[in-house]
Amino acid sequence: MTVYLTRRYRFCAGHRLHSDALSAEENRRVYGKCNNPHAHGHNYVLEVTVAGAVDQPSGMVFDLVALDRIVAERVIERFDHKNLNLDTENFRTQVPTTENLCIEIYKLLQPPLEIAGAERGLQLDRVRLEETSLNSFEYVPDRAGHRVI
Amino acid sequence: MTVYLTRRYRFCAGHRLHSDALSAEENRRVYGKCNNPHAHGHNYVLEVTVAGAVDQPSGMVFDLVALDRIVAERVIERFDHKNLNLDTENFRTQVPTTENLCIEIYKLLQPPLEIAGAERGLQLDRVRLEETSLNSFEYVPDRAGHRVI
Amino acid sequence: MTVYLTRRYRFCAGHRLHSDALSAEENRRVYGKCNNPHAHGHNYVLEVTVAGAVDQPSGMVFDLVALDRIVAERVIERFDHKNLNLDTENFRTQVPTTENLCIEIYKLLQPPLEIAGAERGLQLDRVRLEETSLNSFEYVPDRAGHRVI
Amino acid sequence: MTVYLTRRYRFCAGHRLHSDALSAEENRRVYGKCNNPHAHGHNYVLEVTVAGAVDQPSGMVFDLVALDRIVAERVIERFDHKNLNLDTENFRTQVPTTENLCIEIYKLLQPPLEIAGAERGLQLDRVRLEETSLNSFEYVPDRAGHRVI
Amino acid sequence: MTVYLTRRYRFCAGHRLHSDALSAEENRRVYGKCNNPHAHGHNYVLEVTVAGAVDQPSGMVFDLVALDRIVAERVIERFDHKNLNLDTENFRTQVPTTENLCIEIYKLLQPPLEIAGAERGLQLDRVRLEETSLNSFEYVPDRAGHRVI
Amino acid sequence: MTVYLTRRYRFCAGHRLHSDALSAEENRRVYGKCNNPHAHGHNYVLEVTVAGAVDQPSGMVFDLVALDRIVAERVIERFDHKNLNLDTENFRTQVPTTENLCIEIYKLLQPPLEIAGAERGLQLDRVRLEETSLNSFEYVPDRAGHRVI
Repeated sequence: MTVYLTRRYRFCAGHRLHSDALSAEENRRVYGKCNNPHAHGHNYVLEVTVAGAVDQPSGMVFDLVALDRIVAERVIERFDHKNLNLDTENFRTQVPTTENLCIEIYKLLQPPLEIAGAERGLQLDRVRLEETSLNSFEYVPDRAGHRVI
Repeated sequence: MTVYLTRRYRFCAGHRLHSDALSAEENRRVYGKCNNPHAHGHNYVLEVTVAGAVDQPSGMVFDLVALDRIVAERVIERFDHKNLNLDTENFRTQVPTTENLCIEIYKLLQPPLEIAGAERGLQLDRVRLEETSLNSFEYVPDRAGHRVI
Repeated sequence: MTVYLTRRYRFCAGHRLHSDALSAEENRRVYGKCNNPHAHGHNYVLEVTVAGAVDQPSGMVFDLVALDRIVAERVIERFDHKNLNLDTENFRTQVPTTENLCIEIYKLLQPPLEIAGAERGLQLDRVRLEETSLNSFEYVPDRAGHRVI
Repeated sequence: MTVYLTRRYRFCAGHRLHSDALSAEENRRVYGKCNNPHAHGHNYVLEVTVAGAVDQPSGMVFDLVALDRIVAERVIERFDHKNLNLDTENFRTQVPTTENLCIEIYKLLQPPLEIAGAERGLQLDRVRLEETSLNSFEYVPDRAGHRVI
Repeated sequence: MTVYLTRRYRFCAGHRLHSDALSAEENRRVYGKCNNPHAHGHNYVLEVTVAGAVDQPSGMVFDLVALDRIVAERVIERFDHKNLNLDTENFRTQVPTTENLCIEIYKLLQPPLEIAGAERGLQLDRVRLEETSLNSFEYVPDRAGHRVI
Repeated sequence: MTVYLTRRYRFCAGHRLHSDALSAEENRRVYGKCNNPHAHGHNYVLEVTVAGAVDQPSGMVFDLVALDRIVAERVIERFDHKNLNLDTENFRTQVPTTENLCIEIYKLLQPPLEIAGAERGLQLDRVRLEETSLNSFEYVPDRAGHRVI
C-alpha cells in the first residue's frame, strides 16, 4: 500500500528576474517590478512529497530524520538566506523564477532520496513551492507505471 | 517539463440553496439551513491551476498579469459582492451550490486561458473552491493524454 | 493570576450595507459594492476572550462546555446562515457593518458569561470578528481597574 | 461531471511509536523521541475526499450531514481524546504511525460512504492526515478506471 | 522606543486532566473526555513575546539565537514529546491544563530572558499557548509602570 | 464606543542586515547569515490597526478605500519589490531590521491617517509586521489618555 508523505520546509532568499537573452525593455515587460535591478526576495515554503510502501513492522514510509538531512544538505544550505542570482551555481544561465527553482529542487533531491529509500521503492513524487501566499508552483514528473499528479 | 501554477483569488457572495424542481419540504430536507429564504453568504477562496511547459528564456509558465486580468474579467467582476441567485445569469436554472459554481468557473476560464496560452499548450488543469475553512470542492476534467487529478 | 482564554467560532451570514438615513448616492459612495441591493455575505470568524483567575484545583479559567453553550444560544443560532438585515432584530435600525456586529455580540455575551463566571470574577475581555482574511474588528471596553486592550 | 468534495475534521489523540517486533535499541533508533514510554500526542487534521457525479436538481455531490455522521461514528468517536495504543482495537498489532492511521481510517470510511452514495457512484477518493503543521500523509488507492492521485 | 517581538515555537505532548483533589465523578464532570485514563495529546503552539528598546546601531530588540536557546533549554526539551503528567516535575501537584502550562512556561522563561536582556530592560511581556486551532490561553502579568495586556 | 480595525497588507522586499558602525566580525556575529553580502528577502505581512469611534449612521470606524490608498501610497509603493538597503531613503543610515521597519512604517502612516480620520478622533493604534511565519514585531506607542498595548 502506497502512502504519500509530504513534509514542509521554509527558506528565504533574494532574487531578480532578468534574462540576458532579452532586451532591457523586454525584461521590464516580461517581469514587471520583479525586474528591479536590486534584488527583492521571498519566504519560500517548500513541500516535498515522497511515495512509498509502508514498511512493516515500523509502519513508516521513510525516516524523517534522513529526509530532513537530505533536504538540509541539498536545498536549504544552498538557497537559504542567499541571493539566488549571485550566490548559487543553479542560476548562472537560467532565470530564478519559482518555476525553474521548483524543477531545480526536484533534480537536487531525487537521486539521494531514491537511493536512500531504494529498498522499498521510494519515489520523489513531487515538489511544490509557494512563492507567496497567493502563488505556488508544482513539478510532478510523468513516470510509466506511476500515478500522474 | 510541465509545471503546475496555482494562483489564489478571493471573492464574497450571497446565495440561497433552493431548487424549483423540489417541494418546499424537500428543499428544507436537502439543503437544511442553507435553504433559509433570505440569502446568507460566504468568503470564497478560488484556486486556479494551469499546467504548461516552462518557456525559455523567460522561465515562466504563464504571465501572471494576464492570468489576473482573465480571472478578474470572467469571474471576480461577475460574482464578487453579488447575490448568486438574483444577480447572475449563471444560476437562473441551476442551484448555486459550490459544486455547480466550481464547474461554472471552470467553463468561464478555460477558453480565454487556453487561447492566451496556446503557444505553449497551456491547459486549465483544475479549479478548486473553498466555501468555508472546512469544505472545498474541486473540478478536474478528464482529458486524453492528460494527467487525471 | 489572570489568564485570558480565547475561543474561536465560525458562522456565515448575508448582509447589505445600506442606511435609510443616507441618500441613494451617499449609500453608494460610503459603502461601494457592499451597497448592492441583494445581499452578499461572509464567513465570519469570531474570537471570544474571557479573563479570569485560574481556579484551583481544576486549573481552569472557565468551563468550555458552558462557554460553547452560551455562544451557541446567544450568537450562533441568531446569526448563522441568516440575512443580518432581514432575519435579525439587531439590525432593524442600525447598519450591519462588522463594527456594529462586533459591539452587538459583546452586548449579547457579556451578561450571561459574567453571571456564569461570577464566582471567580470572570470578565468578557473582548470580542474580535474577522469579516475576511484581510479585515478584522475588535471591541474592547474600557473598565476601571481593568487592563485596556 | 465528477467533482471532488473535501471536508476537514479534527481530533486529538495520544500515541507511542513502539513495535514489539523490534528490540528496545531498534525502537529508539527507528522512532527517536516518539518512542518515549509514556504517550505524547497530536492534534490530527483529517481531510476526507469523496468523488462523485453532481446530482441534479440538487447540485450536490453528497449530503454533508450524512458525511459528518459517518465520519463521527466511524472515526471521531473511536479516536478522539483516546490513546491510540491502549484505547483502540486498531493498534493492537500494528504501530500507530500516521501512515497506518491513514490507511486504517480509509478502511473504516470506505464501505459506509460508498454504500450511502451508491446511487451516483460515490467513491472515497483519498484520506489525508496532518500529524503536525509540517507533516502530512495521504492514502490514495489505485483503482481501475479511476484517477490516480 | 519599545518594540514587541513575538516568536513562535511548537511542541507536542500528552496529558490527562485529572485532579486527586476531586472525586472520580467530579473529575468526569469537570474535564469530560479529557479525563480519559490513558493520555491523549496536542500539538501546542507557543508564542513568546518580549518587549524591549530597539538597540542602536544593531536595530534589534533581542538576539534571536539567544532567545531560541533559552526557549529550547527551558521549555522545549522539558515538554516536547513528553507526557506532562508522568514525565515532568511541573505537574506533580497541579493539573496540566493549558492555563497552568501557560503560567508555568512564563515562570520558566522570565528569569533567564530578563537576565540575558538586562542591558536594555527587556521584559517577558506575555506567553500565549494554543492547545488546538480553536483554543488559546495567554498569561500577561500586571506590572507597575508597564503596559497591561 | 471605540472599535479597533485591523487590515492586512503584503509586500516583499530584499534586505541585508549590516551596520557600518560595526566591524566585519561584529556584523557576522550580530546578524549571522542575515549579513550575507548579497541581499536575501522576505514576504512581509503588515497589519495596520486604527482605533476610532464608530460613526453613525454609517456604522464604520474608517473608510477602507481611504485606508488602502494611504497605505499603498506611503508604504507599499515605497517598499514592495525593493531592496530596502539600496532602493529606499529610509535605510540610508539605519539597518533594515524588521524592528526598524516597523517603526518606520508607523511614522509614515500616522500623520496622513490621523488627518484623514481627525473628525472622529482616529488614532493609528499600532503596526505589526511579520517577517516570517515564526517572527513578528509590533510597535505600539504609549499615549497619555490612550490604552497601552
